Amino acid sequence: MEITKDYLASIIDHTLLKPNATAKDVDHLLEEAVMYHFGTVCIRPCDLRYVHHNLEGTGVKTCTVLGFPWGIQSIENKVKEAYAAVRDGADELDIVINRGYLKGGRHDLSKKELNDIVIRVNENIVIKAILETCELTEEEIKTACKIAEESGVDYVKTSTGLYEGATVKAVKLMHKTVPNLGVKASGGIKDWETAYKMIKAGATRIGTSSSVKILSEYMKKFPSEQAEEHKVD
Amino acid sequence: MEITKDYLASIIDHTLLKPNATAKDVDHLLEEAVMYHFGTVCIRPCDLRYVHHNLEGTGVKTCTVLGFPWGIQSIENKVKEAYAAVRDGADELDIVINRGYLKGGRHDLSKKELNDIVIRVNENIVIKAILETCELTEEEIKTACKIAEESGVDYVKTSTGLYEGATVKAVKLMHKTVPNLGVKASGGIKDWETAYKMIKAGATRIGTSSSVKILSEYMKKFPSEQAEEHKVD
Repeated sequence: MEITKDYLASIIDHTLLKPNATAKDVDHLLEEAVMYHFGTVCIRPCDLRYVHHNLEGTGVKTCTVLGFPWGIQSIENKVKEAYAAVRDGADELDIVINRGYLKGGRHDLSKKELNDIVIRVNENIVIKAILETCELTEEEIKTACKIAEESGVDYVKTSTGLYEGATVKAVKLMHKTVPNLGVKASGGIKDWETAYKMIKAGATRIGTSSSVKILSEYMKKFPSEQAEEHKVD
Repeated sequence: MEITKDYLASIIDHTLLKPNATAKDVDHLLEEAVMYHFGTVCIRPCDLRYVHHNLEGTGVKTCTVLGFPWGIQSIENKVKEAYAAVRDGADELDIVINRGYLKGGRHDLSKKELNDIVIRVNENIVIKAILETCELTEEEIKTACKIAEESGVDYVKTSTGLYEGATVKAVKLMHKTVPNLGVKASGGIKDWETAYKMIKAGATRIGTSSSVKILSEYMKKFPSEQAEEHKVD
């Protein structure tokens, strides 16, 4: 598997979701995203309009989260949040699934809460279902992946970052269960070595707030590509 | 201070918010709430309609949470969530404030997100602002309390239960800062002794999932009142 610097940057969702983050922190994230040309920034709904406005024309896309981080909102509210997010410029929506529905075997509701969003937003919007894998059994992870695929989402995503993050085991299981969907590994990915393990396991997207560190470590490890990149500039 | 069994039950928000809870857990909560006649049940938005329907005529009120547990949704979305919750039968709304606004000094937005809800819902709806005090400095707690009062909410509430819960120190500070508002102590209140400390410190409402245990401990401690209660029956 060959991972170029550009590919690595392009699959990173450069993330800032923590509740204490201020407008200044958001500005810092935006500067980094534009400088390193990450695929998207993944930000809180309360920052969405501002972020979208500031990223216009940069080629960096905007991702936000719905029902984050517990997924306990009503289906109706998640749909409304999705509508508003798309209107406000979101290119990608990461939706926390309702684990109560999943664990209670109410698969009709699990499917409905994703599908109601999928069918209502423009088909160019990338939709990811956040499973919170550390809270699920292997069987539940497989069930959730299949429901996500049936609902028409584009990616399954491991974690919110609130508890334990992505594991190689979970990413492998998700990739194996729904090989036609993308897999976003997120939570606790703080260095290149971990990011690489996730990509090897099947991750096609990385959610992290350590994006600059990961890219820097990659460039130290593969200085030849760095040099080549510089020649191209 | 005299605390009767009826008063204690009446100030308890009998709470089930955890993401993994199933429909069966909700049913169990409802049974307990009706049996012990707690003031309200505090449940997830996804359970609201069902809970309201099942509590009609019991005298137990319905409370739900908005922007829970991180408070990172847009103001618009919190307002929409509030509207839908009231339509679906909520008597009380516990709103997680946006700590990014508070910490960034954007007090106009902090006030707006509460006031936009206060002015739009029926004045009989009880509104509580959840501060998450363990994440705030003393100055920030005082500022948040004053903003909450100016916004017209009825209660300030200590915690979501996600991190450290209520402390005597925080409850005292909140009560002293806004003596005209109610104070809801929540998070980590698992026994009568802790509940009593909170009430002594100024709490006028207790949010807990250990409600039955707390009430049982109270009744063991004050068996005379228990007897008296039995006589009345």
